[in-house]
Amino acid sequence: MALLENLKWRHAVKGYDATQKVSTEDLNKILEAARLAPTSSGLQPFRVIVVENQDLKNRMVEGALNPEVMRDCSHVLVFAAWDQYSDAKIDKVYDHHTDVRDLPQGRFSSYTDKIKAIYSAQTPEQHFAHTARQTYIALGLAMAQAAELKVDSTPAEGFSNEKVDEILELAERGLKSVSLLYLGYRNPQTDYLATMKKVRIPMEEFVIRK
Amino acid sequence: MALLENLKWRHAVKGYDATQKVSTEDLNKILEAARLAPTSSGLQPFRVIVVENQDLKNRMVEGALNPEVMRDCSHVLVFAAWDQYSDAKIDKVYDHHTDVRDLPQGRFSSYTDKIKAIYSAQTPEQHFAHTARQTYIALGLAMAQAAELKVDSTPAEGFSNEKVDEILELAERGLKSVSLLYLGYRNPQTDYLATMKKVRIPMEEFVIRK
Repeated sequence: MALLENLKWRHAVKGYDATQKVSTEDLNKILEAARLAPTSSGLQPFRVIVVENQDLKNRMVEGALNPEVMRDCSHVLVFAAWDQYSDAKIDKVYDHHTDVRDLPQGRFSSYTDKIKAIYSAQTPEQHFAHTARQTYIALGLAMAQAAELKVDSTPAEGFSNEKVDEILELAERGLKSVSLLYLGYRNPQTDYLATMKKVRIPMEEFVIRK
Repeated sequence: MALLENLKWRHAVKGYDATQKVSTEDLNKILEAARLAPTSSGLQPFRVIVVENQDLKNRMVEGALNPEVMRDCSHVLVFAAWDQYSDAKIDKVYDHHTDVRDLPQGRFSSYTDKIKAIYSAQTPEQHFAHTARQTYIALGLAMAQAAELKVDSTPAEGFSNEKVDEILELAERGLKSVSLLYLGYRNPQTDYLATMKKVRIPMEEFVIRK
């Protein structure tokens, strides 16, 4: 089905059927959509942590706005961004680019010098503000891919970042959690949004034409 | 075509054919994907400004990283986020929700009271950090929709926000520019990325399984 239809079909599911699991095949397609997401300078400055283990989920719910949603869903995707940029990280990405494209190493050095100069003039807080933004591109595409597969999903910012970072040992990897995406299958008894109309502001108000 | 195929097809086009225009029908589908994007609490705290006028585009290029790309593309979409949240803005969105869903006004007041309390404890800078993040969900979905239609696109953060905000008089609307999306059709002579392989970090590195 086309993207617009899939976006109309989906909603932020508020109650999952804890007995239904997303298949590995579907899960991998959702992760692939996130991996293919475009990012600033192609740096992909984030990772996705897949949490299926129920004990881990039960620990991560502490401080979450909708604990039962996290508990009952099939998988939790944690979008976690680089805590900061560094020359080494940038070089690693572009070394991979030259490898895959069979180009001489250093082919992009005038470009990477430019972005290194920009980031080295910024604070780690500014870096994270930027890396965190990039995760939302992937979050949106992962939701679109889930909808295409008729997998339900719920994006969530209402959770304890500190708790999740600690439980998943993200600091050791230079990552900080930004958002979660719950995946699974709705429970019609508890998903109170299922029967409500989707609401968006009218196009005339959303778009300003110049 | 399915989303993954569309994401593989697209790339950030670096040279447009200035003679080819995106049709109104296609443009509206791309805007509709952005409008359907899920956002935190459903607030849709941003607008999309469509710039087709060549004089405006020529003025907006000042300070842009790839001026010729902005100049030659068919349309520029400007993703501009609310400069801050307010009780009135939140009420307006939820009044619309109750209207569309034919529910009694105030039906969501316990929820809106909660989000108002959260935002009133934050600074305008924290608000904008949050509203800006939401625009990236819509940016990603707009790119996916463009790709489905075989419309080329280029996301861009490298431009003068001050210039664009001033030219489009965004402050008067309580908006601040976050990113641009150039739309159009590639020029094979100047789009040097067209022949390069798409590069992403390997799945084993992108995903951490727990």
